[in-house]
Amino acid sequence: MDWRNQLNVYIDSINVALGRYIQVRDTKNKTLVEAMNYSLMAGGKRLRPVLALASYEIFNDVLEEILPYACGIEMIHTYSLVHDDLPAMDNDDYRRGKLTNHKVFGEGIAILAGDGLLNYAFEIMLQDAVKRDPIKPYVESIKVIAQAAGINGMIGGQVVDLESENQKIDAKTLDYIHLNKTAALIAAPLKVGAIIGKAKEEDIKNMEEIGNILGLAFQIRDDILDIEGEQEKLGKNIGSDESKNKSTYPAIYGLEYSKKKVRELTSEANRKISQYADKSKFLFELSNYLVHRES
Amino acid sequence: MDWRNQLNVYIDSINVALGRYIQVRDTKNKTLVEAMNYSLMAGGKRLRPVLALASYEIFNDVLEEILPYACGIEMIHTYSLVHDDLPAMDNDDYRRGKLTNHKVFGEGIAILAGDGLLNYAFEIMLQDAVKRDPIKPYVESIKVIAQAAGINGMIGGQVVDLESENQKIDAKTLDYIHLNKTAALIAAPLKVGAIIGKAKEEDIKNMEEIGNILGLAFQIRDDILDIEGEQEKLGKNIGSDESKNKSTYPAIYGLEYSKKKVRELTSEANRKISQYADKSKFLFELSNYLVHRES
Repeated sequence: MDWRNQLNVYIDSINVALGRYIQVRDTKNKTLVEAMNYSLMAGGKRLRPVLALASYEIFNDVLEEILPYACGIEMIHTYSLVHDDLPAMDNDDYRRGKLTNHKVFGEGIAILAGDGLLNYAFEIMLQDAVKRDPIKPYVESIKVIAQAAGINGMIGGQVVDLESENQKIDAKTLDYIHLNKTAALIAAPLKVGAIIGKAKEEDIKNMEEIGNILGLAFQIRDDILDIEGEQEKLGKNIGSDESKNKSTYPAIYGLEYSKKKVRELTSEANRKISQYADKSKFLFELSNYLVHRES
Repeated sequence: MDWRNQLNVYIDSINVALGRYIQVRDTKNKTLVEAMNYSLMAGGKRLRPVLALASYEIFNDVLEEILPYACGIEMIHTYSLVHDDLPAMDNDDYRRGKLTNHKVFGEGIAILAGDGLLNYAFEIMLQDAVKRDPIKPYVESIKVIAQAAGINGMIGGQVVDLESENQKIDAKTLDYIHLNKTAALIAAPLKVGAIIGKAKEEDIKNMEEIGNILGLAFQIRDDILDIEGEQEKLGKNIGSDESKNKSTYPAIYGLEYSKKKVRELTSEANRKISQYADKSKFLFELSNYLVHRES
């Protein structure tokens, strides 16, 4: 199958699974579920869950079993965007071309919808895990996701990012932000795909490394697009990093070096991906696409 | 041991365990850990983790094994207070006699500190669970906690509570708020104490029921204290429910009926507690204390 068709197959199965999880079952908390759904179904790229599926398929073929964990990761990613957009944080009005959650539902509900998505991510993963036998790889996977999303992962990066606004930061701090705020939750699905795919220890480690490299490349490409991208394709305002005085790769190293860095990181990731030959063809193509993407 | 001494022994071991979990290990996210610590160590009653320990000791005697789960529950409770106090939610300046988190660290950090506490709760519980063999009761416990804290538990109750401000609500909606916003996270530690204590199925169910009854009594007592309590003992402003036009038991049913209801619920819980005879003496005394508490 052409990799683009494969991508759409992955995205479709993720969207179907997400739609099944987030349904109004109790009229009392209808608003909450609607607010969660609004952001979860706002048409994101589904990059993180797709990576989980792609990694899994390198090592195994019962694809359904990775879905609860892929969906959990996407819920965690979505909650982080909902909270990031709040007035007290990045104060953004648009996301993916739609009004941000708090602009539609108000700040209070947006905070709770974010909390709800984070908590529900663990709920659906744990609900799946308790039914498995042997259960260990599934629980290990939830632990990996919790660590990647947590205070020594994504949230840690968000705090340093927030503290660094309107400040000159050094290259080391910038790498800390990128590796934690972004790369941690890109490495996690690749690692979890391998763990649940019952890959060998060295392959699990390899997939995690690929994730960290791709995650850094992905963030630098994001920062380049914030300068050079087209607002329409991105679905959000461009130039927002500069207006907030955010330190980025382009701001510290310049655009040319940043582009070179993305290409280098991608090559490094692709070398590691290639060892799985035909099995990793999709991941290889996806990695190349990420370098050149326009949104 | 006198039950008050027992209570202090429980609280001490919980505080030691919490202090061990929340330490600054990476200077980069120092602010985040400080903000989490500020609210976690603000001197709460530790009611929820104490209930986990008390329930566990009815059925088993290796008390240390319940601690990660008791601490996880306390972190989840604390995050809910941090987010609840935010300007977009209850907009409170004081909590337990100290400035609220966002008053000290700013709204952005307070949101992230809350997120951090919720995520870290799952992280420490999962870190413990993966080391257990057989692992099942521990994972089952984390699932119970996730459900109690989630969109069909605490967060669900918070949303309805937020939506009900400045509105007349019916008795059914009020019960939904109390049972979900408060009782769910009081029933969860009692249930989890029994599960990890390897209690029988019927005892696990019984402990959960006791928790739901005590949780409702606890919330009604809270609402009574908001009218009759002394600000100094409570460490927060009294009359805040009335000024926010919150629907409460006293507001709907009057003070006398509310007090009667607390006594009735406590008797019902105590009948269920008593079947464990001497083993449940502490829980029996604690339950009686909760009816009469002044803070």
